[in-house]
Amino acid sequence: MLRKLTIYLLAAFVVALIPGFSLGDSRTAARAAREYVRSSQHKIVRQLVDLLSIPNVSFDLPNIQKNARHIVDLLQERGVHVRILEMDVSPLVYGELTVPGATRTLLFYAHYDGDPVEPSRWVDSKPFEPVLRDKALEEGGVLIPFPGLGTPYNEDWRIYARSASDDKSPIVALLAALDGLRSAQMRPTSNVKFLFEGEEEDGSPHLAEFLERHKDLFGSDAVIVADASIYPSGDPTFYFGARGIAKLEVTVYGPIRPLHSGHYGNWAPNPALELSKLLASMKDDTGRVTVEGFYDDVEPLSRQEREALRTVPDIEEKLRAQLGLSWTEGPGKRLPELINLPSLNIHGLESGWVGDQARTIIPSEASASIDLRLVKGIDPQGQIQRVIEHMRKQGFHVTDQEPDLRTRQSHAKIARVVVKRGYPAFRTPMDLPICRQLISAVERALGPTVKLPTMGGSVPLYLFSDRLDVPVIGLPTVNPDNNQHSPNENIRLGNFFRAVEIFAAVLAM
Amino acid sequence: MLRKLTIYLLAAFVVALIPGFSLGDSRTAARAAREYVRSSQHKIVRQLVDLLSIPNVSFDLPNIQKNARHIVDLLQERGVHVRILEMDVSPLVYGELTVPGATRTLLFYAHYDGDPVEPSRWVDSKPFEPVLRDKALEEGGVLIPFPGLGTPYNEDWRIYARSASDDKSPIVALLAALDGLRSAQMRPTSNVKFLFEGEEEDGSPHLAEFLERHKDLFGSDAVIVADASIYPSGDPTFYFGARGIAKLEVTVYGPIRPLHSGHYGNWAPNPALELSKLLASMKDDTGRVTVEGFYDDVEPLSRQEREALRTVPDIEEKLRAQLGLSWTEGPGKRLPELINLPSLNIHGLESGWVGDQARTIIPSEASASIDLRLVKGIDPQGQIQRVIEHMRKQGFHVTDQEPDLRTRQSHAKIARVVVKRGYPAFRTPMDLPICRQLISAVERALGPTVKLPTMGGSVPLYLFSDRLDVPVIGLPTVNPDNNQHSPNENIRLGNFFRAVEIFAAVLAM
Repeated sequence: MLRKLTIYLLAAFVVALIPGFSLGDSRTAARAAREYVRSSQHKIVRQLVDLLSIPNVSFDLPNIQKNARHIVDLLQERGVHVRILEMDVSPLVYGELTVPGATRTLLFYAHYDGDPVEPSRWVDSKPFEPVLRDKALEEGGVLIPFPGLGTPYNEDWRIYARSASDDKSPIVALLAALDGLRSAQMRPTSNVKFLFEGEEEDGSPHLAEFLERHKDLFGSDAVIVADASIYPSGDPTFYFGARGIAKLEVTVYGPIRPLHSGHYGNWAPNPALELSKLLASMKDDTGRVTVEGFYDDVEPLSRQEREALRTVPDIEEKLRAQLGLSWTEGPGKRLPELINLPSLNIHGLESGWVGDQARTIIPSEASASIDLRLVKGIDPQGQIQRVIEHMRKQGFHVTDQEPDLRTRQSHAKIARVVVKRGYPAFRTPMDLPICRQLISAVERALGPTVKLPTMGGSVPLYLFSDRLDVPVIGLPTVNPDNNQHSPNENIRLGNFFRAVEIFAAVLAM
Repeated sequence: MLRKLTIYLLAAFVVALIPGFSLGDSRTAARAAREYVRSSQHKIVRQLVDLLSIPNVSFDLPNIQKNARHIVDLLQERGVHVRILEMDVSPLVYGELTVPGATRTLLFYAHYDGDPVEPSRWVDSKPFEPVLRDKALEEGGVLIPFPGLGTPYNEDWRIYARSASDDKSPIVALLAALDGLRSAQMRPTSNVKFLFEGEEEDGSPHLAEFLERHKDLFGSDAVIVADASIYPSGDPTFYFGARGIAKLEVTVYGPIRPLHSGHYGNWAPNPALELSKLLASMKDDTGRVTVEGFYDDVEPLSRQEREALRTVPDIEEKLRAQLGLSWTEGPGKRLPELINLPSLNIHGLESGWVGDQARTIIPSEASASIDLRLVKGIDPQGQIQRVIEHMRKQGFHVTDQEPDLRTRQSHAKIARVVVKRGYPAFRTPMDLPICRQLISAVERALGPTVKLPTMGGSVPLYLFSDRLDVPVIGLPTVNPDNNQHSPNENIRLGNFFRAVEIFAAVLAM
C-alpha cells in the first residue's frame, strides 16, 4: 500500500490560489485568521481530533503510514503539491505551494510521530481516543463532551491525546492558517514548503540521508520549526537554536542471579547501591555536573543573545510554585540561561521490584537511562566519552557487552553502556534579516515575543543548517504544560487557536 | 467453602501407627528412608508436582485455601489428626500424630505459600506448571520429560516451580519420611505436631494472634523449622536463629508532573538523582552501613557460637566464582559471621522508564524498596527510626503521606516512607539438650553438619520462643541455589530425596 504513496503525486501544476487574492500584511492576516477560527472552530477541532485518532508511535510503521496518508490528503485539499519520500522506514511528507511573484521561500518543519505510550497511566482516557477536558487534569479538569455546533469552545479547554501538542496541533494549525487567509481572500507572500517527519521521536535516523539526497527540494530562506512549546510566560516564542542530545543506558552488575537478601545481604554487593553511588557522583548538590570537562567546549553566547535572555519574562517563581519545587538547580541562574548549558538527566531507574511487587532480593543488575543535552560547541560523541571516562574514574570497568561470568569475576564494578543515537545542537544568529522579519511579523500581529537563543528540547535541526546552510528558526505554539512525552499529553485550545493566527502572520509577512 | 475446612476434622482418635512397629535409631531410619525413596521416587515426585501445581501467592486466598485442603488430605492419608485454624485470612494447617510411650514432642513448622511471580521472567516454563530440567538453568539445564516408571531420577535433575524449595518440598519430604519409616515397620520416637502456614511470605501477619489463642496446642520440646536452604557447602545444616526483618518503601519527589528533560533539564531537580544520593549515603564502599547507631544494639555471640562459626566450611571463594563476584562486603569477615550483623539492602529501584520504553523526562518521583535484616538485640521499629533519622540528616523532610503541593513547595527534599510489617530476630542457645540430641541424630545418620548461630533469612520464629518459650531450631534441606523469591525457583532432586532421610533420622531419634 505504501508503494502507491511513494509514486509521486504528480498533477498538472495548478497554482491553487484563486486569482484576485490581495496581498496583505501580518496584522491583517492574523485578524483574518482569528475571524476564521471564530467561525470555523468546530471544523478545525474536528480536523485535529481526526488526526490524533490515528496512533503514531514512531516505531509503529503501519500506523505511521496511515498518518502520512492522512496528512497528504489534508495538504492536497489545500492545493499543495505533495510528495511522499519513502525511506523504507518512515514516510517523510513533503509539500510545495508556489506563490506567483514571491521572492522568498519558507520551509515549515514538524513531526507527526509521537513518543511511546503507557495507556494505563492515562487518566480516564486513551492515548489515541482524544477527549476534551474543561481545564488541565492537574488543576482538576474533568471530561466534557465535545460541544455541538451552536456552542463555542472555551480557550481553557484542552484536548487530551498523544501528540496533541507534539506536533500534530501545529500541523493542523498551519493548514488552518492557509484556510484563514483564503477565507479573507488573502494569500501567502512567500513560497511555502512543508516537511513533516514520522520518526523524530526515534531520533530522526534518516533525516540526514534524506536532506543529502534531495538538497534541491529544500532551497529556502528559512526553515521554520513548529516543534516544542512556547515559553511558560505564555508569550509567542521564537527560538534560534536547540540543544542536541545523546542518550545512554547504563547497567551495573551484582551477583549473576538475584539472591535472597537474608542469606546473602551484607555479603553480596548490591548493584542498585553501586548504581546509586555512580549516579550520585555525577552531579553536585547544586545540580552542576561533576564529569570532568563537561562544560569545556561550550560556545559562549553573543552580546545580542545575552541581551535577548535578559528580556525573557521572569516565570521561574511561578513555575516553581506550580511544579511544587522549593528550589532549582544552577543557583543564581535563570531557566533560559541554564538551557544554554549542557545537562545530564536521569530519565529512568530500574532494579528488582518496588511496591506491591517488591520481593526481598539482592538484584543481579540495576539500570539507568541518562540523557545528555548538548549546546553549541559540544560534540555528542565527545560528551558521551567524558561520561564514560567519569565511570572509569569511579572504578568501573566499562563495556558495551553483557559481561560474561569471567568478566564479572575479574572486575569489582562493571558498567555496561549502550549509547543511543545523538546529534549536536544548533544556534542561528538572531540578527539575520530573515530572523528580524519573522520577529517583526509576529510582534506586529500579536505583541511582544520571547526570543530564546536556545530552547531546551532537542530537534535534529542542526541538519538543516549543516547540510543546507539555511537559517533554522523555531516557532513553537503549544502550551508548555502539555505533558509531551508523558501520559496525558494535551493541547490547550487557546494555544491551538492562536497558532492559527501566528502562522497566518508569518505566511503573510 | 472454607467454612467446611474450619470445622474441626474430628474423627475417632486412632493412633495411626500399626502395632508391631519397632523403635529404631536415626541411622536405621535414614537408611530405611533412602530405600523407600529408591523404590517410590516416582510417587514422591508426583506428590510434590501435584502440590506445586496449585498456585500459592500468599495474597491469592482462594488458591491458598486449595493448597491448605490438599495438605490436609496428605496429612489425613497418613493418619495425622488435622485441624484447620481459620484466621479469616489464610488457613493455618495444624496436625498431630501421637506416639504411645513417647515422652518428647517435636513441632514441625513450614509454610506453603509463595512469593509473587512474574511469569514472563520464567524461562520456558510457568510458575505453577512444574517442569523438569537436567541441571540448573544457569548451568545450561534443558527441559526433559518426567521419566516413565522404569527410569530412575537423577539427583542433579531439578523441578522448576514457585515454592519448589520454599517451602513445598520440605512439606512433601517430611510426609515421605513418615511413609519411609512405616515401610520399614518403624515409627517416630517422638510425638509429632505439624504447623503449615499460608501467609509467611506476606510477613505472617496473624501468627502471633494464633499462637496466643492456641498456646495449649503447641506444647512441645522443640519447634523444628523446615524453611530456608542448606549451607552452600552442601552439608546438612542446622540454624539456631534467624535474622528479623523490617521493610521500607521510600519515595523521593521532583516536579509534580514529569517534565521534558530538554526544556527543564538542569533546572528542575531530578528525584532519581536525589534518591541515588540518599541511597549512596547509606553504606560505605566496604558495605558497612553508615546509618548512625545501626550496629549499636547487636547482642554479641557466645564463645560456643563463635566456635561453631569457625567450623563452618569455607565456601566463599567458590560461591564468589559461581556468582560472578570479584569481591564481597565486610572485608575480612566471612559470610556466616556477617549474617550475625544487621544489613541494609536495596531490593527495588524505580523511576521513569528504562530500555525500549525510555523517554526523556525528568521523572516526578523515584522509589526504592529497602529491607533491613535484624539480629538478636535489635528492635525492628528502632532500626527503622535510625534509617529515618539518617534521611533527616541528609536534609529530607520525612513523611508517611503523599506530599501535597504546599508540602512540595516548602521542602527541598521530601522522602515518603512507608514502613512494612517487621519482626525481630531470635537465637536459640545451641547447647540446650534438645539441640544436642538433634545434631547428634542427623550427624549419626548423615555425617557432619553445619551449625549456624543465625541463618541469613528471616522467619517469624521469634514468636515461638517469645510466646511459647520453646526452643526453635532450623533444619533446612533445599539447595541454596534454588532461586527462591525469584523467577525460576527450583528444587534439586538430590536435596529433596535427602530431606526424606534427614527428617526420618529426626523422627526416629
